[in-house]
Amino acid sequence: MPKKNVVIAQSGGPSSAINASIAGAISRAMAAKEIGKVYGAVNGMQGFLDRKIINISDQIKSSDDLDTLIHTPAHALGSSRYKIPKGEEGDAVFERIATILKEYDIGYFLYNGGNDSMDTVCRVANYFKKHGEDIVAVGIPKTIDNDLAETDHTPGFGSAARYVAASIAEVYLDTIVYPLPAVTVTEVMGRNAGWLTAASVLARDTGVPAPHLIYLPELPFDPDDFVARASALIKKEGQIVVAVSEGIKYADGSYLADTGAAEDMFGHKTLGGVATILEALLKEKSGIPNLKSRAIMFSTLQRAAAHYASETDLKESFECGWRAVEAAIKGQSGIMITIQRESNEPYLIRYAEGALDHIANAERTVPLEWISDGGTNVSQEMVDYLRPLVRGESSETIVGGLPRFFRFDWTKLVKPGE
Amino acid sequence: MPKKNVVIAQSGGPSSAINASIAGAISRAMAAKEIGKVYGAVNGMQGFLDRKIINISDQIKSSDDLDTLIHTPAHALGSSRYKIPKGEEGDAVFERIATILKEYDIGYFLYNGGNDSMDTVCRVANYFKKHGEDIVAVGIPKTIDNDLAETDHTPGFGSAARYVAASIAEVYLDTIVYPLPAVTVTEVMGRNAGWLTAASVLARDTGVPAPHLIYLPELPFDPDDFVARASALIKKEGQIVVAVSEGIKYADGSYLADTGAAEDMFGHKTLGGVATILEALLKEKSGIPNLKSRAIMFSTLQRAAAHYASETDLKESFECGWRAVEAAIKGQSGIMITIQRESNEPYLIRYAEGALDHIANAERTVPLEWISDGGTNVSQEMVDYLRPLVRGESSETIVGGLPRFFRFDWTKLVKPGE
Repeated sequence: MPKKNVVIAQSGGPSSAINASIAGAISRAMAAKEIGKVYGAVNGMQGFLDRKIINISDQIKSSDDLDTLIHTPAHALGSSRYKIPKGEEGDAVFERIATILKEYDIGYFLYNGGNDSMDTVCRVANYFKKHGEDIVAVGIPKTIDNDLAETDHTPGFGSAARYVAASIAEVYLDTIVYPLPAVTVTEVMGRNAGWLTAASVLARDTGVPAPHLIYLPELPFDPDDFVARASALIKKEGQIVVAVSEGIKYADGSYLADTGAAEDMFGHKTLGGVATILEALLKEKSGIPNLKSRAIMFSTLQRAAAHYASETDLKESFECGWRAVEAAIKGQSGIMITIQRESNEPYLIRYAEGALDHIANAERTVPLEWISDGGTNVSQEMVDYLRPLVRGESSETIVGGLPRFFRFDWTKLVKPGE
Repeated sequence: MPKKNVVIAQSGGPSSAINASIAGAISRAMAAKEIGKVYGAVNGMQGFLDRKIINISDQIKSSDDLDTLIHTPAHALGSSRYKIPKGEEGDAVFERIATILKEYDIGYFLYNGGNDSMDTVCRVANYFKKHGEDIVAVGIPKTIDNDLAETDHTPGFGSAARYVAASIAEVYLDTIVYPLPAVTVTEVMGRNAGWLTAASVLARDTGVPAPHLIYLPELPFDPDDFVARASALIKKEGQIVVAVSEGIKYADGSYLADTGAAEDMFGHKTLGGVATILEALLKEKSGIPNLKSRAIMFSTLQRAAAHYASETDLKESFECGWRAVEAAIKGQSGIMITIQRESNEPYLIRYAEGALDHIANAERTVPLEWISDGGTNVSQEMVDYLRPLVRGESSETIVGGLPRFFRFDWTKLVKPGE
């Protein structure tokens, strides 16, 4: 059988484990007798359509490069927000994809991303099948939101969870130093799925009581109940920390973030962070004099903090990339590598393949029975589920106290055959 | 000579290395034949005046406890904002301090903090000298702002610097994933001294070009120049990261943070983060269509991030506490332990004692000749100064992927003799 080339692309939002997946895929692909060149598309599908293709085999010069790549956060191949249109317009795009793949003699198309990305690779795989193209398309899961269907959890989640848990514990110790009533509201990413906010519960494993209240987007947020509970806690404890998902909604379904907009210096409405809204709400309505309040948005720090990645997450992320290539070689098109949990303690998993038709456009949110205390806490089942995912310290290369990052040269585009 | 007891208190803002100092002091004090009990005052001078005194010797049960204490961020003994009044009212407070010290048979008073705290311990020492009290008062330096006089740098600074540098590098990699014009403005603590913002320059050691612009509070901020420079850079580079001190001022001396206030949902003026103001400024005036902008405030994360402390910083912080006890035993009242640098490479330092009279109320800002490129960058001298301070990975105890923190029981107050 003649060798075929492989192309890898990344899409969706960044994570600190995303490049471990492509490192796994690159490692397996470079060793595969069925595979010739390993290409990368810069900026996902959008870049691929523009033939922004680099030769990864040429740019990875050593196992040190691969190791540094594993510990480099955010898409080393760049990302894209491009969505393939529906209908005839989409068919033209699929044809163009097939044309470019054939130009570069590519038989294996690997796409690394979240929900939207899995939809893309699903449609690509279905188009190839329908049109008899001998090209395999495989998905590699990635998202800090942990909301992909058919998998126990997603690469990227454990590292973000570890960062959020440790940071909230540290922020709590910072919050309590003055003997004055104080609240720190921390805002965690996750528009519709509260997994990452739920992971804040692990802060309690460090020996602190924070977070005192946890709000996920799966249940409606009741401002009055929040003010009552938080005020009572502050009066009792002195200082508290709240963890809230950016995506919490009022009972009518509207996002808090949309309603609490503040005006910036030019009179523009800026989307007020949810944490800022909750902080202001407490200051206004708690009736606690001189309440010291602070809002902390973890912002992109939580998804880029490679310096505090979970080694468990990095290993699984690598393995997902590795196995995506193995599945591709076997011709398993239209699947995504999934992680299936056998047990929590000891933590045992196995890898499997999930049909992209079942994964694309499905969103796995937190089971309501894992949310406790009137929507202000999470259950022991959630804690047991989370604990193994944050284990292991990142073994990133440190030089002079700081990490070193691997960067592909995105400008070194190659023509077919190069 | 009869044994005397020692009391340790902490004050000022948190840092992730502050408890390494008291761990050093505790270690030395517990081993000193001149010292009996090791007391801690909870919540600084304020707590001391309220006799919120705990017995540290009883609460530290093992070397493991001490090791965990070293790696626990934010005042393990709590902090205070209390300032001793001037004049007669102050004299009454000094008398009360002396009374309580005698009640507890304390001969050594150790105070761990920043500028204001050194003023406090200076005045206490001067009062004792003037009134012939046989009590030694010694300062242990601490501040992420790095603005104490007479010392090359301050414990706490290196760890915050390491966190800021690594985080900005990570945030840069997150900023560049989409092929769209984008700016991320990161806001760093330091009201009057720009040392910590300057440390953002070390992000470039990781292999990224960020931060592209660095603004310190030592020079006036020119909004038009900023918009012109940042816009040109975005047009050239596509995406950039800016590091800005929370304390930057306009040419008229007013703080940006004071003028850019936004109104919250209740119509209150909220002090707009400087990063938010700069982000809004660029969006408004850069003329770049669809500019994606983001503001990231490192907030208390930067001073509490024990998970990314600099081991160099922790060791020096420990040593300052250790030597404060040695100086106290020798009767050197009215001094603060200082760090004197012998050379950058190899990094060599020695410890010394600085007169608190020269340290209290002095503020060491960044030398103007270390600020370059029209106030938008820092010099090679600054880089050479900073590099050794962030070296070494924190060796915090990790259990199940997360740190464990040491906490004194603040409610276990003791009476004299206990």
